[in-house]
Amino acid sequence: MSTNQRRPVFVQKYGGSSVSDAEKIRRIAQKICQRARTGVGLVVTVSAMGDSTDELIALANDVTGPDVAPSLREMDTLLSTGELVSSTLMAMAIHSLGQDAVSLSGQQAGIRTDAMHGSARIASIDSERLSRELDAGRVVIVAGFQGLDDSGDVTTLGRGASDTTAVALAAALGAERCEIYTDVDGIYTTDPRIVPSARKLREIGYEEMLEMASLGAKMNPRSIELAAVYGVPVLVASAFDDVPGTLIHGGEPTMELRRAVTGIAIDKNVAKITVRGVEDRPGVAGGLLQPLADAGISVDVIVQNTSDDGTTDFTFTVSEADSRRALEAVRKQQAVKFRDVTSGGGLAKVSIVGTGMQNGPGYAATMFNALASANVNIDMITTSEIRITCIVKSESVPAAANALHGAFELDRIE
Amino acid sequence: MSTNQRRPVFVQKYGGSSVSDAEKIRRIAQKICQRARTGVGLVVTVSAMGDSTDELIALANDVTGPDVAPSLREMDTLLSTGELVSSTLMAMAIHSLGQDAVSLSGQQAGIRTDAMHGSARIASIDSERLSRELDAGRVVIVAGFQGLDDSGDVTTLGRGASDTTAVALAAALGAERCEIYTDVDGIYTTDPRIVPSARKLREIGYEEMLEMASLGAKMNPRSIELAAVYGVPVLVASAFDDVPGTLIHGGEPTMELRRAVTGIAIDKNVAKITVRGVEDRPGVAGGLLQPLADAGISVDVIVQNTSDDGTTDFTFTVSEADSRRALEAVRKQQAVKFRDVTSGGGLAKVSIVGTGMQNGPGYAATMFNALASANVNIDMITTSEIRITCIVKSESVPAAANALHGAFELDRIE
Repeated sequence: MSTNQRRPVFVQKYGGSSVSDAEKIRRIAQKICQRARTGVGLVVTVSAMGDSTDELIALANDVTGPDVAPSLREMDTLLSTGELVSSTLMAMAIHSLGQDAVSLSGQQAGIRTDAMHGSARIASIDSERLSRELDAGRVVIVAGFQGLDDSGDVTTLGRGASDTTAVALAAALGAERCEIYTDVDGIYTTDPRIVPSARKLREIGYEEMLEMASLGAKMNPRSIELAAVYGVPVLVASAFDDVPGTLIHGGEPTMELRRAVTGIAIDKNVAKITVRGVEDRPGVAGGLLQPLADAGISVDVIVQNTSDDGTTDFTFTVSEADSRRALEAVRKQQAVKFRDVTSGGGLAKVSIVGTGMQNGPGYAATMFNALASANVNIDMITTSEIRITCIVKSESVPAAANALHGAFELDRIE
Repeated sequence: MSTNQRRPVFVQKYGGSSVSDAEKIRRIAQKICQRARTGVGLVVTVSAMGDSTDELIALANDVTGPDVAPSLREMDTLLSTGELVSSTLMAMAIHSLGQDAVSLSGQQAGIRTDAMHGSARIASIDSERLSRELDAGRVVIVAGFQGLDDSGDVTTLGRGASDTTAVALAAALGAERCEIYTDVDGIYTTDPRIVPSARKLREIGYEEMLEMASLGAKMNPRSIELAAVYGVPVLVASAFDDVPGTLIHGGEPTMELRRAVTGIAIDKNVAKITVRGVEDRPGVAGGLLQPLADAGISVDVIVQNTSDDGTTDFTFTVSEADSRRALEAVRKQQAVKFRDVTSGGGLAKVSIVGTGMQNGPGYAATMFNALASANVNIDMITTSEIRITCIVKSESVPAAANALHGAFELDRIE
């Protein structure tokens, strides 16, 4: 092989539950070494060990006390240590099996981001060092979830963003495939813990996966977006069991993908913020939501109803974790007048997803009827081209999911 | 105050036992804020929390197994996370008290080192960002113990080297003083846990402190060297108790410093390597020790005796932690022929230290007589201008130290 002819490169990612103790790290290291011996170039991204990220967050809250939110800049450097620990340990474990390997921090892997601490976006990847280490025959372990901004400060990409690191590395390196190894063995028609008859999908399209991203595999939606943009095939599979996973790709849909409804997505930690008596004029929605964007809070579903008295009610959902900060942001903004604002948690999103829905009528009616039969009350409704979402109470999720899984015949093996 | 006229700067260092949990970090943060309110510029170095460095080392050993030593490069990045955690938490705790602060990694603080992983030496400090953060009115928290080498890899300076970081920062910033806050309240005439009548010194010279560095305060010897070279006064004091500490400086000796013997230094984790039947020719000592230097192993006491048959016996001491690696390094080297090599642990160094000894006779005789009266067998002897050291069995340390403390009247308050 000439030095100019690069080996095919694969990028793997192992989640926190796959590297939660020394024994598991050694098992994953063996898998990595077996794969490396096939002659391919391997770049491996790891998440922080087990619950270590949560433990660091708890520590941060302990030192700042209940009244002050920890600085996001400091939090990013703090949380980035979790992935430094797991990536260096993985490199050591691989060494001990006789395979050359090197760990790189996000910074060393050339991952540059914007400066939005806590939810930074990857701006570019300078793969010079990555390529050099690969050319030297090393397995390269990259600390997931982190990068460096233009001030030289460490940033993190948000919870679950090691997936994003893996897909971005695969895109930058022109990798054959990105392989996400996790504690579930693929993407299911819906969460098997809620719907016992849920089935594993052999493949799924990027768009559908984007809508389903909160399913069992809990893949980070941004990583799917990135994979779709760069056409990176993504395999989701079990870290420890050698069974077929699910391939996420943008190729021709097979029979399975041609089903109208591919799956039921469930997202449980939803809170809504309702702003009542908002002055009804152009620019109101933007004025209310800009402070949330500035604070890095993602707004999901947005619903607005016009009422009779020249004012309107404006409701949107955020993750429950952001609920308090979102409420404060709306209260503090000066751009838009309103009568009152309230927040409520304990909600969930239940969605039916499928590209086949684009041209077919009646899916919404089937969905609402199935929920009504299961005695599930719908709080809000929102739709995209390939998805219909209902906001329901969290406790209604099992009834809703099972009703929909049956109504759309997802348990039927084709 | 004009922007050109800099505030006086103080560098503080807090050891791992002072920041071992959230409550202690909050208490130290309060102390730091009080000090910051006096208007001085503050740079604070912190060690890793409590036993976290030992826990990381144990994890590394767990993933590599008993037969392979973890890669020193990976170990350095792994261990550097301990100080990143404590420094970011300290910055957060200071924020929560209303004081602006920023944490910097060794790299961000401009600390460049050589590439000797595990025991790197600081090559230079680019204090541009440090000065900028100080000028912005921030307390700057610097992760101790770490730097960056020319390849862009993280290095660590060796156990206990957060002291070195602090002194080096003080030198680079032209600080008024470096303050080492720890779990003891100063430098004692000897270890008070071994000799109950040990007294705290109000001050001590750099040279004496260098010899005594393994005493109660366990200051890193390299940090004392650095302080002496740059003339940085170093205060060693209690992190939590507001009692006078010990000032280490190079000024005129006061009455206390003029005592012939200032203290008894004790270093317990000593192993000896004895190489027997070494060919007796020039270059032998260098040939035996070069492989240890290459492996980053510090050799302490060296004793060589010529025997009758044209060969010699060569004995040197290393820390017990390095004993196995040192033995292997001697065995593997090809430069020098010898008959056999053995190692033995469980030894300790007991030294009398004092600048006054330079011109006075009889200190050695007094020392050896005192040890003999206490029934302590001397294994090896070595001396410097201001120190006499005896290698004894570890279990003899209490008897030896108490006998010497009495013989040199160190318990007598002047």
